[in-house]
Amino acid sequence: MRRDKHFCRAERRHSVMDMKILLIGAAGRLGTAVGKALTDRGHQVLGVTRSSGELRYDIADPAQVTALYDAAGDVDAVASAAGDVPYKPVVDMAPENYESAFRGKVLSQIELVRQGVSRIAERGSFTVITGVLGRDPIPTSSAASMANGAVEAFVRAAAIEIAPQRINAVSPTVFTESLAKYGDFFPGIQPVDVAQVAQAYVRSIEGGQTGRIYSLG
Amino acid sequence: MRRDKHFCRAERRHSVMDMKILLIGAAGRLGTAVGKALTDRGHQVLGVTRSSGELRYDIADPAQVTALYDAAGDVDAVASAAGDVPYKPVVDMAPENYESAFRGKVLSQIELVRQGVSRIAERGSFTVITGVLGRDPIPTSSAASMANGAVEAFVRAAAIEIAPQRINAVSPTVFTESLAKYGDFFPGIQPVDVAQVAQAYVRSIEGGQTGRIYSLG
Repeated sequence: MRRDKHFCRAERRHSVMDMKILLIGAAGRLGTAVGKALTDRGHQVLGVTRSSGELRYDIADPAQVTALYDAAGDVDAVASAAGDVPYKPVVDMAPENYESAFRGKVLSQIELVRQGVSRIAERGSFTVITGVLGRDPIPTSSAASMANGAVEAFVRAAAIEIAPQRINAVSPTVFTESLAKYGDFFPGIQPVDVAQVAQAYVRSIEGGQTGRIYSLG
Repeated sequence: MRRDKHFCRAERRHSVMDMKILLIGAAGRLGTAVGKALTDRGHQVLGVTRSSGELRYDIADPAQVTALYDAAGDVDAVASAAGDVPYKPVVDMAPENYESAFRGKVLSQIELVRQGVSRIAERGSFTVITGVLGRDPIPTSSAASMANGAVEAFVRAAAIEIAPQRINAVSPTVFTESLAKYGDFFPGIQPVDVAQVAQAYVRSIEGGQTGRIYSLG
Protein backbone atom coordinates (compact mmCIF):
# COMPACT_ATOMS: atom_id res chain seq x y z
CA MET A 1 0.00 0.00 0.00
CA ARG A 2 1.36 3.34 -0.98
CA ARG A 3 1.91 5.83 1.77
CA ASP A 4 2.18 9.31 0.39
CA LYS A 5 4.80 11.70 1.62
CA HIS A 6 2.36 13.86 3.51
CA PHE A 7 1.03 10.92 5.47
CA CYS A 8 4.51 9.74 6.37
CA ARG A 9 5.42 13.20 7.58
CA ALA A 10 2.31 13.44 9.68
CA GLU A 11 3.05 10.05 11.18
CA ARG A 12 6.60 11.00 12.02
CA ARG A 13 5.41 14.13 13.74
CA HIS A 14 3.20 12.23 16.08
CA SER A 15 5.73 9.61 17.07
CA VAL A 16 7.02 10.13 20.57
CA MET A 17 10.34 8.47 19.87
CA ASP A 18 11.56 9.98 16.65
CA MET A 19 11.12 13.71 16.73
CA LYS A 20 12.97 16.49 15.00
CA ILE A 21 13.82 18.92 17.76
CA LEU A 22 15.17 22.43 17.49
CA LEU A 23 17.53 23.05 20.42
CA ILE A 24 18.53 26.65 21.12
CA GLY A 25 21.65 27.22 23.21
CA ALA A 26 22.98 23.85 22.11
CA ALA A 27 26.62 24.65 22.86
CA GLY A 28 26.16 25.61 26.51
CA ARG A 29 26.56 23.35 29.50
CA LEU A 30 22.83 22.70 29.74
CA GLY A 31 22.26 22.64 25.99
CA THR A 32 24.98 20.03 25.52
CA ALA A 33 23.34 17.80 28.15
CA VAL A 34 19.87 18.31 26.66
CA GLY A 35 21.18 17.48 23.19
CA LYS A 36 22.76 14.28 24.46
CA ALA A 37 19.63 13.24 26.38
CA LEU A 38 17.41 13.82 23.35
CA THR A 39 19.79 12.08 20.95
CA ASP A 40 20.02 9.13 23.35
CA ARG A 41 16.23 8.92 23.14
CA GLY A 42 16.43 8.56 19.37
CA HIS A 43 15.45 12.07 18.41
CA GLN A 44 17.03 14.20 15.73
CA VAL A 45 18.41 17.36 17.30
CA LEU A 46 19.02 20.54 15.33
CA GLY A 47 21.38 22.55 17.49
CA VAL A 48 21.26 26.34 17.38
CA THR A 49 24.00 28.55 18.78
CA ARG A 50 24.97 32.19 18.49
CA SER A 51 28.49 31.71 17.26
CA SER A 52 29.31 28.24 15.95
CA GLY A 53 27.90 25.38 13.92
CA GLU A 54 25.45 25.51 11.03
CA LEU A 55 22.49 27.21 12.67
CA ARG A 56 23.84 30.47 14.08
CA TYR A 57 21.09 32.73 15.34
CA ASP A 58 20.63 35.12 18.24
CA ILE A 59 17.04 34.66 19.36
CA ALA A 60 17.16 37.95 21.28
CA ASP A 61 16.46 39.45 17.83
CA PRO A 62 12.90 38.57 16.70
CA ALA A 63 13.97 38.77 13.04
CA GLN A 64 16.59 36.09 13.64
CA VAL A 65 13.93 33.85 15.17
CA THR A 66 12.04 34.13 11.87
CA ALA A 67 15.20 33.34 9.92
CA LEU A 68 15.91 30.40 12.20
CA TYR A 69 12.48 28.86 11.60
CA ASP A 70 12.88 29.44 7.86
CA ALA A 71 16.19 27.60 7.92
CA ALA A 72 15.09 24.77 10.20
CA GLY A 73 12.04 23.67 8.24
CA ASP A 74 9.49 21.35 9.85
CA VAL A 75 10.18 20.51 13.47
CA ASP A 76 8.22 18.65 16.12
CA ALA A 77 9.50 20.39 19.20
CA VAL A 78 11.48 23.43 20.25
CA ALA A 79 13.71 23.32 23.31
CA SER A 80 15.45 26.41 24.63
CA ALA A 81 18.42 26.33 26.96
CA ALA A 82 19.44 29.91 26.25
CA GLY A 83 19.02 33.06 28.28
CA ASP A 84 21.32 35.95 29.14
CA VAL A 85 20.70 38.25 32.07
CA PRO A 86 22.90 40.71 33.97
CA TYR A 87 23.64 40.36 37.70
CA LYS A 88 24.03 43.49 39.81
CA PRO A 89 22.52 45.03 42.92
CA VAL A 90 19.22 46.80 42.18
CA VAL A 91 20.76 50.20 42.87
CA ASP A 92 23.60 49.53 40.42
CA MET A 93 21.25 48.49 37.61
CA ALA A 94 20.32 50.78 34.75
CA PRO A 95 17.02 50.57 32.87
CA GLU A 96 19.05 49.11 30.01
CA ASN A 97 20.07 46.16 32.20
CA TYR A 98 16.45 45.18 32.81
CA GLU A 99 15.71 45.70 29.12
CA SER A 100 18.65 43.47 28.31
CA ALA A 101 17.32 40.73 30.61
CA PHE A 102 13.89 41.09 28.99
CA ARG A 103 15.29 40.75 25.48
CA GLY A 104 17.86 38.12 26.39
CA LYS A 105 15.64 35.68 28.25
CA VAL A 106 11.97 36.74 28.06
CA LEU A 107 11.18 38.15 24.63
CA SER A 108 13.64 35.74 23.02
CA GLN A 109 11.80 32.70 24.33
CA ILE A 110 8.36 34.28 23.82
CA GLU A 111 9.27 34.82 20.19
CA LEU A 112 10.27 31.17 19.82
CA VAL A 113 6.73 30.34 20.88
CA ARG A 114 4.80 33.12 19.18
CA GLN A 115 6.47 32.53 15.84
CA GLY A 116 6.72 28.80 16.38
CA VAL A 117 3.01 28.09 16.82
CA SER A 118 2.45 28.24 13.06
CA ARG A 119 5.69 26.39 12.32
CA ILE A 120 5.93 23.33 14.53
CA ALA A 121 3.88 20.14 14.48
CA GLU A 122 0.20 20.23 15.34
CA ARG A 123 0.92 18.43 18.61
CA GLY A 124 4.41 19.80 18.98
CA SER A 125 5.84 21.32 22.12
CA PHE A 126 7.92 24.18 23.41
CA THR A 127 10.23 23.79 26.40
CA VAL A 128 11.80 26.95 27.76
CA ILE A 129 14.33 27.65 30.48
CA THR A 130 13.77 29.68 33.65
CA GLY A 131 15.48 29.07 37.01
CA VAL A 132 15.26 28.96 40.78
CA LEU A 133 15.86 32.70 41.14
CA GLY A 134 12.30 33.42 40.05
CA ARG A 135 11.03 31.88 43.28
CA ASP A 136 14.12 32.11 45.53
CA PRO A 137 16.15 35.21 44.73
CA ILE A 138 19.72 35.94 45.74
CA PRO A 139 21.30 39.39 46.04
CA THR A 140 22.07 40.78 42.54
CA SER A 141 19.44 38.55 40.91
CA SER A 142 16.64 41.08 40.42
CA ALA A 143 16.92 41.05 36.62
CA ALA A 144 17.26 37.27 36.49
CA SER A 145 14.37 36.83 38.91
CA MET A 146 12.23 39.24 36.90
CA ALA A 147 13.01 37.36 33.69
CA ASN A 148 12.25 33.94 35.18
CA GLY A 149 8.98 35.11 36.69
CA ALA A 150 7.99 36.63 33.36
CA VAL A 151 8.73 33.46 31.40
CA GLU A 152 6.93 31.18 33.86
CA ALA A 153 3.78 33.31 33.85
CA PHE A 154 3.93 33.43 30.05
CA VAL A 155 4.17 29.64 29.95
CA ARG A 156 1.00 29.27 32.01
CA ALA A 157 -0.79 31.80 29.80
CA ALA A 158 0.38 30.46 26.44
CA ALA A 159 -0.47 26.88 27.44
CA ILE A 160 -4.20 27.59 27.53
CA GLU A 161 -4.11 29.19 24.07
CA ILE A 162 -1.89 26.97 21.96
CA ALA A 163 -3.32 23.52 22.76
CA PRO A 164 -3.01 20.86 21.42
CA GLN A 165 0.51 22.21 21.12
CA ARG A 166 2.18 22.26 24.53
CA ILE A 167 4.55 24.46 26.49
CA ASN A 168 6.46 23.88 29.73
CA ALA A 169 9.35 25.51 31.56
CA VAL A 170 12.36 23.88 33.16
CA SER A 171 13.46 25.71 36.30
CA PRO A 172 16.67 24.33 37.83
CA THR A 173 18.69 25.52 40.76
CA VAL A 174 22.48 25.76 40.40
CA PHE A 175 24.10 22.89 38.47
CA THR A 176 26.32 20.52 40.43
CA GLU A 177 28.83 20.94 37.60
CA SER A 178 28.85 24.73 38.13
CA LEU A 179 29.30 24.72 41.91
CA ALA A 180 32.98 25.61 41.70
CA LYS A 181 32.14 28.75 39.79
CA TYR A 182 28.72 29.76 41.18
CA GLY A 183 28.30 27.79 44.39
CA ASP A 184 29.13 30.78 46.60
CA PHE A 185 26.05 32.54 45.29
CA PHE A 186 23.77 29.69 46.40
CA PRO A 187 24.66 29.03 50.05
CA GLY A 188 22.84 26.00 51.42
CA ILE A 189 20.85 25.59 48.24
CA GLN A 190 20.61 22.07 46.84
CA PRO A 191 22.37 21.82 43.45
CA VAL A 192 21.13 19.60 40.64
CA ASP A 193 23.08 17.51 38.13
CA VAL A 194 22.78 18.93 34.65
CA ALA A 195 21.89 15.45 33.34
CA GLN A 196 18.85 15.48 35.62
CA VAL A 197 17.83 18.87 34.29
CA ALA A 198 18.12 17.48 30.78
CA GLN A 199 15.64 14.76 31.73
CA ALA A 200 13.07 17.48 32.48
CA TYR A 201 13.33 18.45 28.81
CA VAL A 202 12.70 14.81 27.86
CA ARG A 203 9.70 14.78 30.19
CA SER A 204 8.33 17.98 28.71
CA ILE A 205 8.87 16.95 25.09
CA GLU A 206 7.74 13.31 25.24
CA GLY A 207 5.11 13.72 27.97
CA GLY A 208 1.60 15.08 27.73
CA GLN A 209 1.65 17.94 30.21
CA THR A 210 1.40 21.61 29.42
CA GLY A 211 1.66 24.87 31.34
CA ARG A 212 3.92 23.20 33.88
CA ILE A 213 7.02 24.57 35.58
CA TYR A 214 9.41 21.68 36.27
CA SER A 215 11.41 22.79 39.31
CA LEU A 216 14.68 20.92 39.88
CA GLY A 217 17.02 21.03 42.84
CA MET B 1 13.02 72.31 74.16
CA ARG B 2 13.86 73.15 70.60
CA ARG B 3 13.33 70.50 67.97
CA ASP B 4 15.23 71.27 64.85
CA LYS B 5 13.66 70.84 61.46
CA HIS B 6 15.73 67.82 60.58
CA PHE B 7 14.70 65.96 63.70
CA CYS B 8 11.03 66.70 63.11
CA ARG B 9 11.31 65.45 59.54
CA ALA B 10 13.02 62.28 60.64
CA GLU B 11 10.34 61.73 63.23
CA ARG B 12 7.58 62.24 60.69
CA ARG B 13 9.14 59.73 58.40
CA HIS B 14 9.07 57.01 60.97
CA SER B 15 5.51 57.59 62.10
CA VAL B 16 3.15 54.93 60.87
CA MET B 17 0.17 57.26 60.81
CA ASP B 18 1.35 60.41 59.10
CA MET B 19 3.25 59.52 56.00
CA LYS B 20 3.81 61.38 52.77
CA ILE B 21 2.94 58.89 50.07
CA LEU B 22 3.52 59.14 46.35
CA LEU B 23 0.61 57.45 44.56
CA ILE B 24 1.06 56.66 40.88
CA GLY B 25 -2.05 56.06 38.82
CA ALA B 26 -4.05 58.15 41.26
CA ALA B 27 -6.88 58.92 38.84
CA GLY B 28 -7.79 55.34 38.00
CA ARG B 29 -10.45 53.22 39.66
CA LEU B 30 -7.92 51.51 41.92
CA GLY B 31 -5.80 54.62 42.44
CA THR B 32 -8.81 56.61 43.54
CA ALA B 33 -9.71 53.97 46.12
CA VAL B 34 -6.12 53.70 47.34
CA GLY B 35 -5.90 57.48 47.67
CA LYS B 36 -9.10 57.55 49.72
CA ALA B 37 -7.98 54.68 51.96
CA LEU B 38 -4.62 56.32 52.64
CA THR B 39 -6.10 59.76 53.23
CA ASP B 40 -8.66 58.22 55.59
CA ARG B 41 -5.71 56.82 57.55
CA GLY B 42 -4.29 60.32 57.99
CA HIS B 43 -1.59 60.15 55.36
CA GLN B 44 -0.68 62.87 52.91
CA VAL B 45 -1.10 61.54 49.39
CA LEU B 46 0.69 63.02 46.40
CA GLY B 47 -1.26 61.81 43.39
CA VAL B 48 0.52 61.22 40.11
CA THR B 49 -1.29 60.77 36.81
CA ARG B 50 -0.36 60.85 33.18
CA SER B 51 -2.74 63.54 32.06
CA SER B 52 -4.29 65.63 34.83
CA GLY B 53 -3.47 67.29 38.14
CA GLU B 54 -0.19 68.80 39.27
CA LEU B 55 2.09 65.78 39.04
CA ARG B 56 1.80 64.57 35.44
CA TYR B 57 4.33 61.90 34.64
CA ASP B 58 4.40 58.74 32.56
CA ILE B 59 6.49 56.27 34.55
CA ALA B 60 6.93 54.07 31.47
CA ASP B 61 9.69 56.57 30.66
CA PRO B 62 12.60 56.19 33.13
CA ALA B 63 13.53 59.87 32.67
CA GLN B 64 10.06 60.90 33.81
CA VAL B 65 10.47 58.77 36.94
CA THR B 66 13.56 60.85 37.73
CA ALA B 67 11.66 64.07 37.09
CA LEU B 68 8.80 62.84 39.26
CA TYR B 69 11.07 62.15 42.22
CA ASP B 70 12.73 65.54 41.75
CA ALA B 71 9.34 67.23 41.86
CA ALA B 72 7.93 65.19 44.73
CA GLY B 73 10.73 65.79 47.23
CA ASP B 74 10.97 63.67 50.35
CA VAL B 75 8.41 60.87 50.58
CA ASP B 76 7.93 57.98 52.97
CA ALA B 77 6.27 55.52 50.67
CA VAL B 78 5.57 54.92 47.00
CA ALA B 79 2.37 53.19 45.90
CA SER B 80 1.76 52.25 42.29
CA ALA B 81 -1.66 51.49 40.87
CA ALA B 82 -0.58 51.96 37.26
CA GLY B 83 0.16 49.45 34.55
CA ASP B 84 -0.77 49.21 30.88
CA VAL B 85 -0.64 45.95 28.96
CA PRO B 86 -2.16 44.83 25.66
CA TYR B 87 -4.60 41.89 25.44
CA LYS B 88 -4.51 39.67 22.36
CA PRO B 89 -4.09 35.99 21.52
CA VAL B 90 -0.44 34.94 21.49
CA VAL B 91 -0.50 34.42 17.73
CA ASP B 92 -1.86 37.94 17.16
CA MET B 93 0.80 39.59 19.32
CA ALA B 94 3.84 41.34 17.87
CA PRO B 95 7.18 41.62 19.67
CA GLU B 96 6.26 45.28 20.20
CA ASN B 97 3.21 44.26 22.23
CA TYR B 98 5.31 42.33 24.72
CA GLU B 99 7.81 45.19 24.82
CA SER B 100 4.93 47.55 25.50
CA ALA B 101 3.73 45.39 28.40
CA PHE B 102 7.28 45.28 29.74
CA ARG B 103 7.68 49.06 29.59
CA GLY B 104 4.12 49.80 30.71
CA LYS B 105 3.95 47.59 33.78
CA VAL B 106 7.33 46.00 34.53
CA LEU B 107 10.15 48.47 33.83
CA SER B 108 7.93 51.36 34.94
CA GLN B 109 7.45 49.90 38.40
CA ILE B 110 11.03 48.62 38.62
CA GLU B 111 12.23 52.16 37.92
CA LEU B 112 10.05 53.51 40.73
CA VAL B 113 11.95 51.18 43.03
CA ARG B 114 15.43 51.39 41.55
CA GLN B 115 15.41 55.18 41.48
CA GLY B 116 13.35 55.43 44.64
CA VAL B 117 15.73 53.57 46.96
CA SER B 118 17.95 56.65 47.29
CA ARG B 119 14.97 58.98 47.48
CA ILE B 120 12.46 57.64 49.97
CA ALA B 121 12.70 57.35 53.75
CA GLU B 122 15.20 54.98 55.31
CA ARG B 123 12.37 52.69 56.39
CA GLY B 124 10.07 53.62 53.55
CA SER B 125 8.19 51.19 51.35
CA PHE B 126 7.21 50.47 47.79
CA THR B 127 3.88 48.88 46.92
CA VAL B 128 3.39 47.82 43.31
CA ILE B 129 0.48 46.37 41.38
CA THR B 130 0.33 42.99 39.64
CA GLY B 131 -2.80 40.85 39.21
CA VAL B 132 -4.38 37.44 39.20
CA LEU B 133 -3.40 36.75 35.58
CA GLY B 134 0.16 36.08 36.64
CA ARG B 135 -0.98 32.92 38.40
CA ASP B 136 -4.31 32.21 36.66
CA PRO B 137 -4.19 33.28 33.03
CA ILE B 138 -7.12 33.78 30.68
CA PRO B 139 -7.00 33.64 26.87
CA THR B 140 -5.40 36.84 25.49
CA SER B 141 -3.56 37.52 28.77
CA SER B 142 -0.08 36.33 27.83
CA ALA B 143 1.43 39.84 27.95
CA ALA B 144 -0.41 40.72 31.16
CA SER B 145 0.54 37.40 32.73
CA MET B 146 4.17 37.86 31.69
CA ALA B 147 4.22 41.36 33.19
CA ASN B 148 2.66 40.27 36.48
CA GLY B 149 5.00 37.32 36.85
CA ALA B 150 7.95 39.60 36.15
CA VAL B 151 6.93 42.19 38.73
CA GLU B 152 6.21 39.61 41.44
CA ALA B 153 9.58 37.91 41.00
CA PHE B 154 11.25 41.32 41.02
CA VAL B 155 9.48 42.15 44.29
CA ARG B 156 10.85 39.00 45.95
CA ALA B 157 14.35 39.78 44.65
CA ALA B 158 14.39 43.48 45.50
CA ALA B 159 13.05 42.82 49.02
CA ILE B 160 16.22 41.02 50.09
CA GLU B 161 18.41 43.86 48.82
CA ILE B 162 16.70 47.06 49.91
CA ALA B 163 15.97 46.32 53.58
CA PRO B 164 15.20 48.09 55.86
CA GLN B 165 13.17 49.64 53.06
CA ARG B 166 10.34 47.32 52.06
CA ILE B 167 8.54 46.24 48.91
CA ASN B 168 5.33 44.28 48.36
CA ALA B 169 2.94 43.64 45.49
CA VAL B 170 -0.85 43.78 45.47
CA SER B 171 -2.34 41.17 43.17
CA PRO B 172 -6.13 41.43 42.83
CA THR B 173 -8.53 39.48 40.68
CA VAL B 174 -11.23 41.39 38.75
CA PHE B 175 -12.83 44.28 40.66
CA THR B 176 -16.47 43.88 41.63
CA GLU B 177 -16.96 47.39 40.27
CA SER B 178 -15.58 46.30 36.88
CA LEU B 179 -17.65 43.15 36.46
CA ALA B 180 -20.06 44.78 34.00
CA LYS B 181 -17.16 45.59 31.69
CA TYR B 182 -14.71 42.73 32.28
CA GLY B 183 -16.70 40.02 34.06
CA ASP B 184 -17.07 37.91 30.91
CA PHE B 185 -13.31 37.45 30.82
CA PHE B 186 -13.26 35.97 34.34
CA PRO B 187 -15.92 33.22 34.31
CA GLY B 188 -16.43 31.74 37.75
CA ILE B 189 -13.61 33.77 39.22
CA GLN B 190 -14.30 35.50 42.53
CA PRO B 191 -14.23 39.29 42.14
CA VAL B 192 -12.94 41.62 44.83
CA ASP B 193 -14.20 45.04 45.92
CA VAL B 194 -11.77 47.75 44.99
CA ALA B 195 -11.97 49.13 48.55
CA GLN B 196 -10.65 45.79 49.80
CA VAL B 197 -7.77 45.95 47.34
CA ALA B 198 -6.99 49.43 48.63
CA GLN B 199 -6.67 47.97 52.13
CA ALA B 200 -3.85 45.75 50.87
CA TYR B 201 -1.94 48.95 50.09
CA VAL B 202 -2.58 50.12 53.66
CA ARG B 203 -1.34 46.77 54.93
CA SER B 204 1.79 46.97 52.79
CA ILE B 205 2.58 50.58 53.68
CA GLU B 206 1.82 50.56 57.41
CA GLY B 207 2.81 46.96 58.11
CA GLY B 208 6.23 45.44 58.50
CA GLN B 209 6.28 42.77 55.82
CA THR B 210 8.42 42.75 52.72
CA GLY B 211 8.73 40.62 49.61
CA ARG B 212 5.09 39.62 49.90
CA ILE B 213 2.50 39.21 47.16
CA TYR B 214 -0.91 40.11 48.59
CA SER B 215 -3.38 38.10 46.51
CA LEU B 216 -6.99 39.30 46.64
CA GLY B 217 -10.13 37.66 45.32
